[in-house]
Amino acid sequence: MSDNIKRIYFDYAATTYLDKEVLSEMKPYFSETFGNANSQHWFGREAEKAVIAAREKIAAIIGAKPSEIYFTSGGTEADNWAVKGVAGAQAAVGRHIVTSAVEHHAVLDTCKQLEKKGFEVTYVQVDKEGVIDLGALKAALRDDTVLVSIMYANNEIGTVMPIREAVEIVRGQKRRIYFHTDCVQAAGALDLNVGRLDADLMSVSAHKFYGPKGVGFLYVRNGVKLEKLMIGGNQERKMRGGTLNVPHIVGLAKAFELANENRERNNEYIGGLRDRFVSRVLSEIDNVYLNGSREKRLPGNANFSFEFIEGESLLFSLDVLGIAASSGSACSSGSLDPSHVLLALGTRIELAHGSLRFSFGKDNTVDEIDYAVDALKKKVSDLRAMSPLFYQFPSEKSKV
Amino acid sequence: MSDNIKRIYFDYAATTYLDKEVLSEMKPYFSETFGNANSQHWFGREAEKAVIAAREKIAAIIGAKPSEIYFTSGGTEADNWAVKGVAGAQAAVGRHIVTSAVEHHAVLDTCKQLEKKGFEVTYVQVDKEGVIDLGALKAALRDDTVLVSIMYANNEIGTVMPIREAVEIVRGQKRRIYFHTDCVQAAGALDLNVGRLDADLMSVSAHKFYGPKGVGFLYVRNGVKLEKLMIGGNQERKMRGGTLNVPHIVGLAKAFELANENRERNNEYIGGLRDRFVSRVLSEIDNVYLNGSREKRLPGNANFSFEFIEGESLLFSLDVLGIAASSGSACSSGSLDPSHVLLALGTRIELAHGSLRFSFGKDNTVDEIDYAVDALKKKVSDLRAMSPLFYQFPSEKSKV
Repeated sequence: MSDNIKRIYFDYAATTYLDKEVLSEMKPYFSETFGNANSQHWFGREAEKAVIAAREKIAAIIGAKPSEIYFTSGGTEADNWAVKGVAGAQAAVGRHIVTSAVEHHAVLDTCKQLEKKGFEVTYVQVDKEGVIDLGALKAALRDDTVLVSIMYANNEIGTVMPIREAVEIVRGQKRRIYFHTDCVQAAGALDLNVGRLDADLMSVSAHKFYGPKGVGFLYVRNGVKLEKLMIGGNQERKMRGGTLNVPHIVGLAKAFELANENRERNNEYIGGLRDRFVSRVLSEIDNVYLNGSREKRLPGNANFSFEFIEGESLLFSLDVLGIAASSGSACSSGSLDPSHVLLALGTRIELAHGSLRFSFGKDNTVDEIDYAVDALKKKVSDLRAMSPLFYQFPSEKSKV
Repeated sequence: MSDNIKRIYFDYAATTYLDKEVLSEMKPYFSETFGNANSQHWFGREAEKAVIAAREKIAAIIGAKPSEIYFTSGGTEADNWAVKGVAGAQAAVGRHIVTSAVEHHAVLDTCKQLEKKGFEVTYVQVDKEGVIDLGALKAALRDDTVLVSIMYANNEIGTVMPIREAVEIVRGQKRRIYFHTDCVQAAGALDLNVGRLDADLMSVSAHKFYGPKGVGFLYVRNGVKLEKLMIGGNQERKMRGGTLNVPHIVGLAKAFELANENRERNNEYIGGLRDRFVSRVLSEIDNVYLNGSREKRLPGNANFSFEFIEGESLLFSLDVLGIAASSGSACSSGSLDPSHVLLALGTRIELAHGSLRFSFGKDNTVDEIDYAVDALKKKVSDLRAMSPLFYQFPSEKSKV
């Protein structure tokens, strides 16, 4: 921290810091137990032991077999691999994929690339809270559907999807259709037990739950055929090439363990902060709307549309005060397009442009929440006072 | 280190330890400056600054523009992306690829996957030292060739390829054919200046030169069209999705800087150890052959075939004594097939099975070399005494 401003981080959905306890667990694997886990000697075996232990730890947490866990370089690789991998392996069986309109770009844009290669994709719509329309999902399934990919929780608005119900609809078909769920935002906050969710593939990324960046895993139910995405050596049971990133794999497992051990306590605490933030914002600022669901929502997520305001301007105003929020997802930054998620909810374009995500973590405090609400009130008021839009609608003005 | 055996690591080509100086440079980015480099706030900008500095540092070292450096999760992703990326982007222009018979599986098996998708691949042969046949390369080029991928240095036998000459042959064609070179083994030991090599794409991985595992880069000359491999957010100028692994990117740049600053000194020292090892082995053990070239070779590589011996047995015997070597590449471990590289040199199958790679690094010592040669002499002798092959060829026996 190179300046004296008090910094408040409300962007835990973009990334978390690495927990010191996790880093401690990783440390011996950087420079001491540094072997290539595939090497046939002591250095290799010591590294391999750590990978085996990490794989077993993760498998136990989600109720899977260790042989169903494949380490990846993160959520994007896991999502890409699941979608392209099933599509590639099933291309001779069918070339139709079903997904939702609100998926992360790692799934959505992979589907768009597949469309250019002869696949058809149905993008199932969501309701105004961002929950997938299960009737539309069922109607979208065809004889040539090979994959359904629906996220467990949305990264922008935090909406939690009825994955188990969606899986049951897909299982009800005559032919086997594989089900992938992007759990990148859900991991840490929600239970990913594979017996409960019953998905065939699940993507997880460590840096969303105080683990290191650049590592994640794809759960692949035994028996699911996948084309390789990362092609190289015989690593990961010959399914994913590339030298194993041992310290990060150790860190992923430790962070996942801590997140799951403390899940209820963290959710209660973080959910409490979030509820206080949402209640105060909705009651103390006029013409503001909570995007997504009030109930079916990740505990750490709040996403608002502020009428008559440009989200980026508000973001920068808050940043000047030391408050870090996000306009949509970090992954989409640099894009001037309004959020595809908000548009899918039926949000007007102006409102979609006036949206901010605040996402909370285990180190946030009530004081930070209150400071941020006060700052937000002032900045929203200041920006509206400068807004030409605001003055075009004088009838609305009195309500602010 | 959990036991009392003196451990000698001669497998630096598989992976290196992470340099403490590099880890120090990475540390602030794990838990303090931990932001998502694409986030539009202070935490994001601080992380982004580190990424920009790393990109500039790497670009300066190889004489490229920062906009030509794309961070990846390692060498495998870089190799996969280069090959699939060019193939995907050029599929409408042509579907023929030229590579060598001795490439790493990250290139070779990616080509094989492309063959299943309608591409044709020519695998150019190498001479008995593992050097690509430039005449055969020229003859392999066709009107529909879109990519040539030739490694700079081989991972098993250390042979250094005439990349500049190969590029010139490819540039001599009427139509533009892109040239990729896998520099994963070369990086750190050889100069990767893009003006000198003149390749269009180059793959590098940090953990081969005392950097962290799980990070690398692909150099892509401005103007080269690539299909995306990792699809997601707008990261890396919209070409490579996935949250940037900031600490590892910082570590990659630092390790690359150190490797290049100390290149000549390290090469001289490591090459001296290697030469001592090779000379002693060849003069003190009979019926042993150095695979690859004596001159055109990475300084840290020695690869021998021991007649009448099973390489795995020798590997395990050395491991018991604390000496870590490798039978072929770590990436191929688990495979019972003889090395495709050795077979491409014309090595007999029995000899290919009787081969070991010793690869040296900056922390090895003359004492370690001498200890290992003595151990090797004894173990080779012991194993040959037990070998049925050895007794089948009594005329050879006297020579041992």
